[in-house]
Amino acid sequence: MPKPRSKPPSKEKTQIAFGAAVRARREALEMTQERLAELAELHTNYVSSVERGERNIGLHNVARLAYALDLPVSELASCLDPRAH
Amino acid sequence: MPKPRSKPPSKEKTQIAFGAAVRARREALEMTQERLAELAELHTNYVSSVERGERNIGLHNVARLAYALDLPVSELASCLDPRAH
Repeated sequence: MPKPRSKPPSKEKTQIAFGAAVRARREALEMTQERLAELAELHTNYVSSVERGERNIGLHNVARLAYALDLPVSELASCLDPRAH
Repeated sequence: MPKPRSKPPSKEKTQIAFGAAVRARREALEMTQERLAELAELHTNYVSSVERGERNIGLHNVARLAYALDLPVSELASCLDPRAH
């Protein structure tokens, strides 16, 4: 019997976990939301709504934020890995 | 002078790279698109459009596909890491 696949996090948990990961990295870099938005070529309001876990962010914007945060996309996405949530 | 940040892949490249990664893993598992769609609780047409690189997929659906493909989200997203594209 193949081991049952674990379930993906809910949409809400996905958004909250990703927002927290973005904020943690941004703060670790002592970067303002404005600066991150500028580097990622996104609006500041958008970045803050992502950090608050209010956005089901598209993959392209995930990549833009990861590059702006100087992180591999995989590392930023690891907040959604099975053991992480 | 801090090393210049590399640029994220374009939206199109992001979609194509991710679609190729999903297809490669699905085929490695000898899984049909129908079966993957069923496991990820998505429509088959949606899965095939993702694989064709036609979708700027939301992060929650990225997580659903990763779990259905029995892969950590970070590993599926690694197709977007700097050296990968």
